[in-house]
Amino acid sequence: MHAPITIRDVARLAEVHPGTVSRALNPQTRSLVNSDTAARVLAAADELGYRPNSMARGLKTSRSFTVGVLVPDLTNPLFPPIVRGIDDRLTLDGYTPLLVNTDSDPERERASIETMLARQVDGFIAATARLDVEPLDEAIARGLPVVLVNRTFEDGSISACTVDDQRGSQLAVQHILGLGHTRIGYVAGPQNVSTGHRRYLGFVAAMEAAGIEIAPGDVSFAAAFRELAGAQACAELLRCDPGLTAIVTANDRLAIGCYDTLAQLGLRCPQDISVIGFNDMLFIDRLRPPLSSVRVPQREIGYAAADLLLDQLTDGSAGPREVLLEPSLVVRGSTAAPSLRDAAAGPGA
Amino acid sequence: MHAPITIRDVARLAEVHPGTVSRALNPQTRSLVNSDTAARVLAAADELGYRPNSMARGLKTSRSFTVGVLVPDLTNPLFPPIVRGIDDRLTLDGYTPLLVNTDSDPERERASIETMLARQVDGFIAATARLDVEPLDEAIARGLPVVLVNRTFEDGSISACTVDDQRGSQLAVQHILGLGHTRIGYVAGPQNVSTGHRRYLGFVAAMEAAGIEIAPGDVSFAAAFRELAGAQACAELLRCDPGLTAIVTANDRLAIGCYDTLAQLGLRCPQDISVIGFNDMLFIDRLRPPLSSVRVPQREIGYAAADLLLDQLTDGSAGPREVLLEPSLVVRGSTAAPSLRDAAAGPGA
Repeated sequence: MHAPITIRDVARLAEVHPGTVSRALNPQTRSLVNSDTAARVLAAADELGYRPNSMARGLKTSRSFTVGVLVPDLTNPLFPPIVRGIDDRLTLDGYTPLLVNTDSDPERERASIETMLARQVDGFIAATARLDVEPLDEAIARGLPVVLVNRTFEDGSISACTVDDQRGSQLAVQHILGLGHTRIGYVAGPQNVSTGHRRYLGFVAAMEAAGIEIAPGDVSFAAAFRELAGAQACAELLRCDPGLTAIVTANDRLAIGCYDTLAQLGLRCPQDISVIGFNDMLFIDRLRPPLSSVRVPQREIGYAAADLLLDQLTDGSAGPREVLLEPSLVVRGSTAAPSLRDAAAGPGA
Repeated sequence: MHAPITIRDVARLAEVHPGTVSRALNPQTRSLVNSDTAARVLAAADELGYRPNSMARGLKTSRSFTVGVLVPDLTNPLFPPIVRGIDDRLTLDGYTPLLVNTDSDPERERASIETMLARQVDGFIAATARLDVEPLDEAIARGLPVVLVNRTFEDGSISACTVDDQRGSQLAVQHILGLGHTRIGYVAGPQNVSTGHRRYLGFVAAMEAAGIEIAPGDVSFAAAFRELAGAQACAELLRCDPGLTAIVTANDRLAIGCYDTLAQLGLRCPQDISVIGFNDMLFIDRLRPPLSSVRVPQREIGYAAADLLLDQLTDGSAGPREVLLEPSLVVRGSTAAPSLRDAAAGPGA
């Protein structure tokens, strides 16, 4: 069986941008394309035998070629690369993202979704901050495809694209165990978002797999993915168990907070305590010490989420799918073998 | 004379979002608003005597209520806060930004602008990377308002909103002079973008104002606003004049590059050499030492740029304007008084 002819094949043959092909092939938007170009595109489509999926499968054909993209706050450094990946993929097929910052405020979220619906977007990609999708119900009720990005809705009813968060925690724990640590604390993120919850489950599973008991007090839950919350959680961990030699965290900003607490307590990283983050944010390699972290392929996540959405747009029968991308470990200066302090402060001391 | 009644006055009285007012008042989009709400908006507009500017002044009335926003690359940490500010302001008036990443690639830029024009955007806000606006000519020819953000076109023919770059350099130089430095090098940015050029002019002017001669070799031009280019420029400065005690830079990433070179040469910051950046990027306070920098109100710049565009949309006779926002100085650990090394390596040594 041959691979189906795609819009990109037509674009290549006609030597135009895929977005131009979309517009030239759609009678409603054809007038927006230079007429010579449109003729070339139609000839190329004809030559290749290209049949637009939307027509072939009887889907809605009056497309706006826009997609609503909801992020809590673009100034959170997690989101720009995700949005960039979404844009890169959508542009390839002639779609334009309509970006909205919701501040995770349900009212603003609702108003934004209404605006997007009024603009007749063809679908939504949402990095909602909560484990509910209620504001998107209206979109779903109208049959619009919705894809969650960097978050997932646990019952699998909505397509989602995230990193494999559990696997990421496992990589972090295995790295720490490999260095010889046995007294390991965990700064968990908020448990009402999937990243926080799954990374925590991954930590627990990895510790159990290694046969290491997690003592009460060895996990502290941060109220938010913020530096201050991380600092507080770290202080709590060390109050409960001053003999910890390593702290695994649910994200880089929590790890930065741990740096602050360690500095305040006069503890050195990594000599006294190793710290590992999660996300591998920009400039995290510039901290002192440079932070070891679990790298999340943010741009690829955005790209894959847009891919999922485009699949659903071209195949109305495609059910919800969850795509998990692989994290990787980035070892830097914040993790090292436990020092003598470990033995001195350990249970045998 | 009373202030003119605005869409926000109507929104306040009708207790709805300004965007809802825009849609309710436009016959073409009224059906998108709940009919009770639309009736309330029309009554409020009537009560206040509100006349949409576009109708009153005979401007184009078939608005798409979208604005094309062009940035080189959203993953450059400069741009997310600018885009956030643009979104905040546009949303207030019911406009939606269409965001495009151009990678500063003329071909991609041109294709994006064509796409935006086909989508009938009402105007453009562009953070172009170059000192030309040729790709926007088509938009300008069609009479669409264009506002540059974070960049300016030197002949003043296009509205622009930037920080006062010259003033920013002046703040940096005055801080360094105030600490007692006299042997000061400058890592300049690329001179084909207004930020690079104006910051350099500001450095020269501030040094001249202080009566300090800039020796040949005391300025090094980085090829790009990147860490590596900054590292190379810093190495060049110190080769020419090993007696420098302070380095002023045209942006934070160049300053980070200086850190790298100083570390390689075994020079301590700030004990041996002070370094000051420009932009006050996120997490720059987490470097070792935390970087002193000139703060640029990025979000406010985006907000003000959108303001300028909306002015031009509602008043077709408004000429191009340039808005300069005030920078401020943020002193951290990377700048200090010159040490004894200064005297030892100085001209008298």
